[in-house]
Amino acid sequence: MAQSAKRVVLASRPVGEPKQSDFRIEDYAIPSPNDGQVLLRTIWLSLDPYMRGRMSDGPSYSAPVPIDGVMEGGAVCEVMDSKFPDLKKGDIVLSHTGWQQYAVADGKVLRKIDPKIAPISTAVGVLGMPGMTAYTGLLEIGKPKAGETVVVAAASGAVGSAVGQIAKIKGCRAVGIAGGKDKCDYVKKELGFDECIDHRDPDMAAKLKAACPKGIDVYFENVGGAVFEAVYPLLNAFARIPVCGLIADYNTIFGKDTPAPKWANSIMRAILVKRLNFRGFIVSDFNAMYPEFIRDMPGWVRDGKVKHKEFVTEGLESAPGAFMGLLKGANFGKQLVRVGPDKA
Amino acid sequence: MAQSAKRVVLASRPVGEPKQSDFRIEDYAIPSPNDGQVLLRTIWLSLDPYMRGRMSDGPSYSAPVPIDGVMEGGAVCEVMDSKFPDLKKGDIVLSHTGWQQYAVADGKVLRKIDPKIAPISTAVGVLGMPGMTAYTGLLEIGKPKAGETVVVAAASGAVGSAVGQIAKIKGCRAVGIAGGKDKCDYVKKELGFDECIDHRDPDMAAKLKAACPKGIDVYFENVGGAVFEAVYPLLNAFARIPVCGLIADYNTIFGKDTPAPKWANSIMRAILVKRLNFRGFIVSDFNAMYPEFIRDMPGWVRDGKVKHKEFVTEGLESAPGAFMGLLKGANFGKQLVRVGPDKA
Repeated sequence: MAQSAKRVVLASRPVGEPKQSDFRIEDYAIPSPNDGQVLLRTIWLSLDPYMRGRMSDGPSYSAPVPIDGVMEGGAVCEVMDSKFPDLKKGDIVLSHTGWQQYAVADGKVLRKIDPKIAPISTAVGVLGMPGMTAYTGLLEIGKPKAGETVVVAAASGAVGSAVGQIAKIKGCRAVGIAGGKDKCDYVKKELGFDECIDHRDPDMAAKLKAACPKGIDVYFENVGGAVFEAVYPLLNAFARIPVCGLIADYNTIFGKDTPAPKWANSIMRAILVKRLNFRGFIVSDFNAMYPEFIRDMPGWVRDGKVKHKEFVTEGLESAPGAFMGLLKGANFGKQLVRVGPDKA
Repeated sequence: MAQSAKRVVLASRPVGEPKQSDFRIEDYAIPSPNDGQVLLRTIWLSLDPYMRGRMSDGPSYSAPVPIDGVMEGGAVCEVMDSKFPDLKKGDIVLSHTGWQQYAVADGKVLRKIDPKIAPISTAVGVLGMPGMTAYTGLLEIGKPKAGETVVVAAASGAVGSAVGQIAKIKGCRAVGIAGGKDKCDYVKKELGFDECIDHRDPDMAAKLKAACPKGIDVYFENVGGAVFEAVYPLLNAFARIPVCGLIADYNTIFGKDTPAPKWANSIMRAILVKRLNFRGFIVSDFNAMYPEFIRDMPGWVRDGKVKHKEFVTEGLESAPGAFMGLLKGANFGKQLVRVGPDKA
């Protein structure tokens, strides 16, 4: 086993868009597990938009990554050495050990993955946090009813693609928003959304309106910005808006002052007169729904009702660039970093 | 019986604050009921903030009052003549016949009031629309749990006073906001709120913070404006915000452009990271809860757990001025207009 490994630490807190110099790749000595712990080798690292929040020290639901701390994140790992009775060398587990090649973790916080059920990478994708985010936010807050119109942006991404496909399973009209013709074609033709609008189209708002002739009943908010501005006037009475992310606004939220959004002077009145329901959530708020998720989602994936796409960059060193790309939509599908081979 | 009567019609749509010339008092011939109808004589007219919305023709949940149309509103009336089998002369009913001395109405839309249960004026107050607004919005959206902090403004008013007292019944800390020392004393000493803050106090925000040492779990929004600005930073994770009214903003909402509120650039992020739940409602959305309301509220009133105060002006002609005062908090308690005596 190697005596030293590589990890990515947070070198500085980005202002606005993160840049390469906000990260630092460094060598470290591979640690040894104590009693109750295991040594993990990272196979797949998941990159997700929420990580932008962890890079800043404003108020949030979680503490930020400290300066010089390892960037956090979900990972699929192989157990290399175990001092925890329920895990043995060679087991594959889901961990939250972040942007590094090796890590020691308490055995009791790890979830063992059965490679026979699905490719192990899905444990950080459609069968993991992003899939569960889509499932819980849409069903528990969005409460879509057959015949209603559900809109979601980043529709080719890990969360958005699942939102629209679950909406179809529930009998809804699913309208996606994505960046560029290739993604829109994929969302409509492969994933089976009813429509997909290109957010780069200067007529995006008018096209979204045309794609939602009966208005919008559920808007699964994961981007904010111009998409929300286009959605806002189309919201129907009693619309539900699960607020899951604001990727389009992260760099400005964590950056300088910006002009107030166009909806600022009317949103409270809209909430009142349209009886809108805005509700923020993070996936862990709905941990109690995991049994339902794991009852439904693997079957939907197996039956082809929920398709998914992975976008892989190679090597831990690619993570900072891939993450910067993710915030701009450079990925096409769930963003993964292959940190190591499936078997050591 | 008089052959002619007086009514108040909408003369023009106010821009900003309504003024006397936006109303016109006129004479009209008392109509006669057709089959299935009754002739009503108004005893009590209810004045409520929502009426400001009906004076404007912006998008809302209800059509506006037409120009030259009778101002709408809830009323407690005596049946003077009946061609509807279930009502007879002398019965007292709740109607929505508005700002006029006499009106014809379909018998089937009226609710008969039993004068033995409570003073008949409570049918447009604590046992009517305002009481049910408080009950349903607080319990169905606010979902207050024992030990939580509930904040409501206009706390000496018809809705706010019931919100805080129901919160106390549910074991919460109730903090009110009201205008002036007399109202604050009443809210705290008579109604039993834990604290009441004067919104005219230049230190209102700091005092509200001191009155809510554990933050705010439920904010029953009925005023907007500066009160919401003071509440906003105090909202706890998972806070619920039933949005029932925005009285402080009505004149500007229906007036000219105003600067964006201070929270405009952060509210979507706050919804996300604090997992806030903003939900608008009007009382009729919760008509299905009427049996629960009428099971609980009369008992609470009888037992002194929910007290209420009425603020009466005399004569239909006083209605425009009383309504303008209501929007500025000139009333102290539920605003009523005595249009006629209890018995003709």
